[in-house]
Amino acid sequence: MFKEKEITDNITSSVKVPLGFKAGGIHCGIKKFKKDLALIVSELPAKAAAVFTLNKVQAAPVLVSKMVLGKSRSHRAIIINSGNANACTGTRGHIDAVRMINETADELGVSADEVFVASTGVIGETLPIDKIISGIRSINNSLSGVDFTSAVEAIMTTDTFAKSCSSTFIIDGEEVTIFGMAKGSGMIHPNMATMLGFVMTDAGINKSVFQTLLKDTTDRTFNRIIVDGDTSTNDLVIGLANGASGASIIPQSESYQLFEEKLFGVLKKLALDIVRDGEGATKLIEIKVEGSKSDDDAVKAARTVALSPLVKTAIHGEDANWGRIIAAVGYSGIEFDPAKFEIIINGFPILNQNYLVTLSNEEANKSLKSENIELVINLNGGEGTATCWTCDFSEEYVKINGSYRT
Amino acid sequence: MFKEKEITDNITSSVKVPLGFKAGGIHCGIKKFKKDLALIVSELPAKAAAVFTLNKVQAAPVLVSKMVLGKSRSHRAIIINSGNANACTGTRGHIDAVRMINETADELGVSADEVFVASTGVIGETLPIDKIISGIRSINNSLSGVDFTSAVEAIMTTDTFAKSCSSTFIIDGEEVTIFGMAKGSGMIHPNMATMLGFVMTDAGINKSVFQTLLKDTTDRTFNRIIVDGDTSTNDLVIGLANGASGASIIPQSESYQLFEEKLFGVLKKLALDIVRDGEGATKLIEIKVEGSKSDDDAVKAARTVALSPLVKTAIHGEDANWGRIIAAVGYSGIEFDPAKFEIIINGFPILNQNYLVTLSNEEANKSLKSENIELVINLNGGEGTATCWTCDFSEEYVKINGSYRT
Repeated sequence: MFKEKEITDNITSSVKVPLGFKAGGIHCGIKKFKKDLALIVSELPAKAAAVFTLNKVQAAPVLVSKMVLGKSRSHRAIIINSGNANACTGTRGHIDAVRMINETADELGVSADEVFVASTGVIGETLPIDKIISGIRSINNSLSGVDFTSAVEAIMTTDTFAKSCSSTFIIDGEEVTIFGMAKGSGMIHPNMATMLGFVMTDAGINKSVFQTLLKDTTDRTFNRIIVDGDTSTNDLVIGLANGASGASIIPQSESYQLFEEKLFGVLKKLALDIVRDGEGATKLIEIKVEGSKSDDDAVKAARTVALSPLVKTAIHGEDANWGRIIAAVGYSGIEFDPAKFEIIINGFPILNQNYLVTLSNEEANKSLKSENIELVINLNGGEGTATCWTCDFSEEYVKINGSYRT
Repeated sequence: MFKEKEITDNITSSVKVPLGFKAGGIHCGIKKFKKDLALIVSELPAKAAAVFTLNKVQAAPVLVSKMVLGKSRSHRAIIINSGNANACTGTRGHIDAVRMINETADELGVSADEVFVASTGVIGETLPIDKIISGIRSINNSLSGVDFTSAVEAIMTTDTFAKSCSSTFIIDGEEVTIFGMAKGSGMIHPNMATMLGFVMTDAGINKSVFQTLLKDTTDRTFNRIIVDGDTSTNDLVIGLANGASGASIIPQSESYQLFEEKLFGVLKKLALDIVRDGEGATKLIEIKVEGSKSDDDAVKAARTVALSPLVKTAIHGEDANWGRIIAAVGYSGIEFDPAKFEIIINGFPILNQNYLVTLSNEEANKSLKSENIELVINLNGGEGTATCWTCDFSEEYVKINGSYRT
C-alpha cells in the first residue's frame, strides 16, 4: 500500500508559519474573480536558494529571478502572480517582470536585488501590468505573519486544492519551522514543469549550503513527479532561510541531517499533492524500480513507465495489464533481462520471473481498486533503485486541456 | 492544407495485387468472431527485407523472424495472427512461433527457413496454438491471387478500418506493382511501435539493396508517425520481392529512383492511415519543422511536439495555443532562439518572429477547424527540416485504452 502516513509524518495539517515571515494574497484583476497576486516577505535578510526550469524557452520572471539570485548575498521578498505566465512576451515581458520587482522593493523599502518574481498562467500574453502595480501597492495591508492561506490561494491556476504544509522540529534547543507552498496541476514533468514551489524557514543556513540542499531535495521530490511529460517555461522553486529561530544548520552535523530530512518531507508532501491534483487524476501511483544495474537506470525506467499513456490509461481502467509495463521498460533505453522481470502492485504479485502469472486477470485487477497504487518493478539484475510518482490518465485530463483557454 | 492528393498520387484506391502472390485470411478462434489468421505466399522464391522493433522486450515472433531473415537467401511466405501478441511468453512462446512456421512450411511444401511469422494483440498470454495449427491447415483453401482483403482484415486489432494500397508503374517496359498492407491503432511511436506492415512487389531486386531501401523508406514514413509514444514489443515491416513482373531494380539507375519513390508513397499512405486511425483520433496533424541547425534537430523538435499531450489536446479542442508548441520545442533538447520562432497552421500565421501575434484567438482557432492540420514551425536558425505525423488526443483515446482487455 501507498504509505500516506509515512509521507505526512511530522508534517502538521494545520500549517505553522516560520518566525520572521509574512505573506499575503489578493485579487488584483488578472483573473476575473479569484486571487492572483501573492507576496512573501522576510522581515530579516534571508539566505536564498533556487532551482529553475530547464526548458530552453524561459519566461521573463525566470530569467529575471535567475539574475536576482546571483546579484545579492541576501534576499527579502518574492512577488508572484497567477493567471498569466509572462512567457514568450519579449522585451515587454522582461520590462514588466523588472517593474514587478521594483514596485515591490519600493513598497517594502528594500533593494530591488533582494526581490524575486514568479509568474504562472497562460503563455504569450502580456501582463496587465497596471493592475499588478496597483495590486502590489495594496497587498502590503493584507500581509499576515500567522496565516499564509491567502498567499497559497493566490498562486493557484487549475489546482483544485491549495497546497501547503509545514514541519516543526528542535535544533540546538530552538524550535525550527519549515513552511512550503506550491502550485501544480497539469504539465508536470521531472525537469521542473509548470509548478511553483516556495519554502520558508526560520533556520539560519549558509547560502551555498542551502542551494545544495534545495537542489538535492528538489531532485528527489519535485523532479520525480510526472503528470504528462510536458515541461514548462515558468517553473521554479525558491527557498528563503532567515535565521529568526536562532538555530543554525551546520554542514556534516546531526542538525544538518535532521534539517535535510524535514526539508525533504515538506517538498515530498507538496510534490505528491501536485500529483494527486494532476489534471483529471483519480489515482496516485508510486513507481518503485528495484534491481536495475544503477540508480540512474532505475530513474530512467520509472520515468518511462510513469510517462506511458498506455500504462496510465490501463491503471485508470483498473486493468492490471502488465504487458504495457514491461513494454515501457523495454523502450526506456536501459539494459535488463525481460525474463527476470517481476511486478508487484499493492502487494499483489502480478508477474513473477520467467513470465509466470499466478493470478487470474480478475484477481490481478483487484490490486488497482484503491486510490493509492504502489507499483514495484524488480528487474533482478543489480542494486539500482528509484522511486517516481505519477497519476492515472483519465478522460477528464483531455477535457481540461482541450478547453484551457476557453 | 494537408496535401491528401500528393500522398495518394499514383496509388489506386482499388488495390492491385502484384504478380505471383497469393494471400488469405480466416477466423481460427483466437478472437471470438473476427478474422485472426492471415497467410501471404509468394509463388516464386522472393527476396526479403525486414525492419524490427527496437524495444528491448521483443516478442517471440520478432526474435524468430529475425533469425529467419538471415537463414535463407530467398523466402516464400508470412504467417500472421492477430488477437494475441505472443510476447513475454517465454520458452513456450518461442516454441509456438516456431510451430507456426513449421506448420506453414509443411502446408506449402517449402523450407521452414523461408517462412516469417508475426503476431499482434495482447501481451503475456500464450497462443491457443491448436486453433492456430488447425487454422494454418485450412487457410490454404482461402488463398487468392486477386483479392487480399481477407488477409488485410485478419491482421487488424483495434483498427477501425483496413489499411492497404498499391502502386503500379512501368519499369523497362514491364508493369510493376507494389502492394502494401498494415495494421496500427494505438501505441504508435517512431521506433516501430505496435504496427505490422507487409509489402509485396513483383519487381526483382537484390536482397541487400531491398533491405537498404525498406529501412530508408520505413525511417521516413512508419518511423515518423507518433500516436502516443509507446513502443511495442511486436512491430515489424516485412517486404517480399519475387521478380514475377520481369523488371529488375538496379541500384543508381532511373528505375531504382522510381521504385524508391513508389515504395515511399505506398509506405507513407499506410503510415498516414495508421495515424488517421489512431485510437480516438479526430484530426491528422502534419508537423513540419524548418530552419533548425540540422535535420536531426528538426526530427527531435517535430517528435517532441507530436508527443506532447498538451499540444495534442489543444488541437483536439481547436485551441491554437501556440505557447504549448513553443514550450514543447523548448524541452526537445535542441538549441534555438525562441524569439525567432514562427508558427503557421493551415496557412494562418499564428506566431511571427519576436513573439508577434497578429490574429485574435478566435481568428487563430479557425486554423484548426479542419480534419487535416498542417503545422509549420520555422526556427529561422538554419537549413534543417523534417516532417512527422500525429493525431489529436481525445477523451475517446482514454476510454479505448482504459478498457482494452475488458
